[in-house]
Amino acid sequence: MTDQRIFNFNAGPAALPLQVLEDIQSSFLNFNGSGMSITEISHRSSYFDEVINDAIARAKRLLKLDDRFHVLFVQGGASLQFAMIPMNFLSGDDIADYVNTGTWSTKAIKEAQIQQKNHRVVASSEDRDFSYIPTDIPFSKGAKYVHLTSNNTIKGTQFQEFPDTNGVPIVCDMSSDIFSRPLDMDKFGMIYAGAQKNLGPSGTCMVILRKDLLEGANADLPSMLTYDTYAAKNSMYNTPPCFGIYTIDLVLKWIEEQMGGLAQMEAYNIKKAGLLYDFIEAGSFYRTTAQADSRSLMNVTFRLPSEDLEKLFVAQATASGLGGLKGHRSVGGCRASIYNAATMESITALVQFMESFAKENK
Amino acid sequence: MTDQRIFNFNAGPAALPLQVLEDIQSSFLNFNGSGMSITEISHRSSYFDEVINDAIARAKRLLKLDDRFHVLFVQGGASLQFAMIPMNFLSGDDIADYVNTGTWSTKAIKEAQIQQKNHRVVASSEDRDFSYIPTDIPFSKGAKYVHLTSNNTIKGTQFQEFPDTNGVPIVCDMSSDIFSRPLDMDKFGMIYAGAQKNLGPSGTCMVILRKDLLEGANADLPSMLTYDTYAAKNSMYNTPPCFGIYTIDLVLKWIEEQMGGLAQMEAYNIKKAGLLYDFIEAGSFYRTTAQADSRSLMNVTFRLPSEDLEKLFVAQATASGLGGLKGHRSVGGCRASIYNAATMESITALVQFMESFAKENK
Repeated sequence: MTDQRIFNFNAGPAALPLQVLEDIQSSFLNFNGSGMSITEISHRSSYFDEVINDAIARAKRLLKLDDRFHVLFVQGGASLQFAMIPMNFLSGDDIADYVNTGTWSTKAIKEAQIQQKNHRVVASSEDRDFSYIPTDIPFSKGAKYVHLTSNNTIKGTQFQEFPDTNGVPIVCDMSSDIFSRPLDMDKFGMIYAGAQKNLGPSGTCMVILRKDLLEGANADLPSMLTYDTYAAKNSMYNTPPCFGIYTIDLVLKWIEEQMGGLAQMEAYNIKKAGLLYDFIEAGSFYRTTAQADSRSLMNVTFRLPSEDLEKLFVAQATASGLGGLKGHRSVGGCRASIYNAATMESITALVQFMESFAKENK
Repeated sequence: MTDQRIFNFNAGPAALPLQVLEDIQSSFLNFNGSGMSITEISHRSSYFDEVINDAIARAKRLLKLDDRFHVLFVQGGASLQFAMIPMNFLSGDDIADYVNTGTWSTKAIKEAQIQQKNHRVVASSEDRDFSYIPTDIPFSKGAKYVHLTSNNTIKGTQFQEFPDTNGVPIVCDMSSDIFSRPLDMDKFGMIYAGAQKNLGPSGTCMVILRKDLLEGANADLPSMLTYDTYAAKNSMYNTPPCFGIYTIDLVLKWIEEQMGGLAQMEAYNIKKAGLLYDFIEAGSFYRTTAQADSRSLMNVTFRLPSEDLEKLFVAQATASGLGGLKGHRSVGGCRASIYNAATMESITALVQFMESFAKENK
């Protein structure tokens, strides 16, 4: 129990900008002079139209999206996208390429398999425990899409550059690094991201979709599983997750107006992760787990000399107000998730704690 | 723009209990002494386990659910359930009965059609513009389920009693009246409800599912579209809509602890709707649109002598702090949605306004 806010290194749901939380709190009983909470206003009202259209406009400005792209909001997280992507875009002899960089890619591949859609795993880093991002990938000619997971939260790896796919559109799960850096959108057919790491609360997935992908898409699918349903109705075929979209709008506003856009956001993220990686590299007590050229700016995974020390580290850190440092339950170890909203202050506090913990436990 | 809260008659998203909103607001920066917002805590933490398990336990106590039932949380609203129900429960020669009582039933039927699943519309009230609930329905023998929509928000009709289906489990969309009255759960195989009317914010759908329905359910479906995925993982196969589930927990707590349970909730709802219906019946200026024996306790639909007067009525009501009284865009007219959270105070204010509007515009 604490009456103060902690430094939150959770992998997701994760820290949100304090200013965003304060904005939500202060207007929670009366949104924008409506006399209603944001959770009580109609999605068919001008109040909500303004929210969703502002969120879309900000996403477009930040990523410099032109009119080739839809910005959609879908429920069900990235996990539902794993299924919707092959369901919508693969039919008959179509084939899709998948790159397997860990748990989330593996799950995406599984959902193509379940639907018995043609797909090929063109590269995998499973041979070295997903500790790196594959290069020189032999992409199929004429594939409908190439599926990538831009950042692996569990192993702490990230595509530092996106591969050349010979013009095949990349469909990319960016749940853990969307809006953390500028993107060359010419490479992408679709980007999707569960909101709960870099964007807002869980329960809303942003889908950025190049319109031409809809043209050859499968028809006669259930309405809620068809991208066209969302594109045709500005994501309001049925009641959208209004609170999530509202929070996303505030987060994008914060990135745009407080942080200064994606180039500045990336510079800040490089500085934050750099501080932590440099500290770890400088000593021998901690060691990182990801290959240097594949390291994530979002999730810094590291180990201590023993599992007992890792347990003690997490426990003492938690007691000192540094939360969420336990590694993913599937791999153990430690992990600091430092998405956009993580502050330099929190990184500095973590490094100080790590320094004194190392001294005490050498 | 108002600095006061209005009387909110929105059809959904709709009014929530003020106490619930105040609870959310006051702890929004620090949930339960965690030092994090409810939107920032891990769904794998003991903090969130407590929330989801409390919500489930309260739902079970309120509806007197025994161990035959799962309480699940799914994203995608009732609209995704329209698709998931036939997808999971119908295969081969299986047939399902559907009763068509309006827009939402029609949409549910459409999703069975899209998947080319055997289904039969065994009754419909379309012949009289969905103004009543059919009786003496010729249910199929041996159907897998009977699909009903308990309350039609658009036409203001409601099943006042549920039919005898010869033991075939009812699968019921209760988005607009769940937890508004006690239920005889022996009749139901599944109840589902988008949260945004009687339960919480949009983006979370509660699914109450009798476990034996899972036994014959289709396998090899996409993971996020299989009920078993939710049942096996306490609705946390992937990150659930945490804020929605948290709000639902608070709403159920309010029903249980402040309102005194479902029998008392129903009595209050009868009193509220009664005040409004009695007032309308007593005069000739307003007229209800639903047949008396099929009237909804949740959505009171009514007309004025002319469409011009209806426009003026909605505009003047809005200006007087009575919001959301416009009928659904597909039917016009007026509608007061008075779900659980609508207070007697709001109904009294509405009746007073209606009285003076009628006097001025006779």
